[in-house]
Amino acid sequence: MEYLKQKIKECGVVKKGNVLKVDSFLNHQVDVRLYEEIGKEFYRLFGNCEVTKILTIEASGIGIACVTAQFFNCIPVVFAKKSKTSNVSDDVYSSEVASFTHGNVNTVIVSKEYLNKGDRVLIIDDFLANGAALNGLIDIIEQAGAELVGAGIVIEKGFQDGGKLLREKGVRVESLAIIESMNDETGEIVFRN
Amino acid sequence: MEYLKQKIKECGVVKKGNVLKVDSFLNHQVDVRLYEEIGKEFYRLFGNCEVTKILTIEASGIGIACVTAQFFNCIPVVFAKKSKTSNVSDDVYSSEVASFTHGNVNTVIVSKEYLNKGDRVLIIDDFLANGAALNGLIDIIEQAGAELVGAGIVIEKGFQDGGKLLREKGVRVESLAIIESMNDETGEIVFRN
Repeated sequence: MEYLKQKIKECGVVKKGNVLKVDSFLNHQVDVRLYEEIGKEFYRLFGNCEVTKILTIEASGIGIACVTAQFFNCIPVVFAKKSKTSNVSDDVYSSEVASFTHGNVNTVIVSKEYLNKGDRVLIIDDFLANGAALNGLIDIIEQAGAELVGAGIVIEKGFQDGGKLLREKGVRVESLAIIESMNDETGEIVFRN
Repeated sequence: MEYLKQKIKECGVVKKGNVLKVDSFLNHQVDVRLYEEIGKEFYRLFGNCEVTKILTIEASGIGIACVTAQFFNCIPVVFAKKSKTSNVSDDVYSSEVASFTHGNVNTVIVSKEYLNKGDRVLIIDDFLANGAALNGLIDIIEQAGAELVGAGIVIEKGFQDGGKLLREKGVRVESLAIIESMNDETGEIVFRN
């Protein structure tokens, strides 16, 4: 997606520790026009997959998922919640997710009411790095007995192995921009073709 | 907004402790079509106010704010982030917000880059009860020297005093559904006219 890559080149900032700061347009301040382009592209990729539900994780995934759902005839969006306690109730599916950015572990939960056998689920998220969040969401989909259609990711850090491992497991992962390498000294960002 | 009130009556669940559970359509599973109607209504109310930016707070506000922004010609959305530490850096505005639902205090932050003097800001949020979140966001807008246009709220708990106090202070608060009373034994929900 050229518009996205251009935006990352122009406004993304490479920080130490393999951090790519895109909070001027993606996950703090939001360019909603870009979200629309992202949603349109996810629809182009997954529009013929009979998706019944979009699953994402709070917080940054929510806006992208909601705008994407508009292209899918407003199918329901479910956002997994992060819980501080690992002591969760019987009426939720839960999975442990380690956060790369924050260096902690969250329990991620989805109410059993909102994910069911028969659902065909598209996961949407802003970033894929080591795949922790994605694996947590996939775990929850499996617990629900629902079917995973694939994952639509805005930015994948191709130099971390989350995407590779998931694709090897047979998960359809579609990332709109895959970063091959980035350099926090020069600020250079190289995309995979 | 009749469609919203109908949805609350049909799908909202009144729980002990003045909790209204609307997570089947508003803040866990999302009815994106409803979000569109909400966004349209906020535009009807604030569309002539020369809003330059929409401010909300993670997590549940984000989707509503992004869909609303589409009606405002895709002006930027900024979502305030909740931080566990009160030890925040110099490049953010911050405010303390007590959470009614979770019984804790969060530091809420917005990067100084994304809110400026000259901005005319519309706050969007899903709930207004005691006004803690709203007051935190207003505090941040004041720190930035930006102008507050008003607040668009989906559901106001009219029996708590947040809305009343804010209106008395001169803030334009527009709530799409105001709950006058609710009863966790009968499940009855009464709206203010």
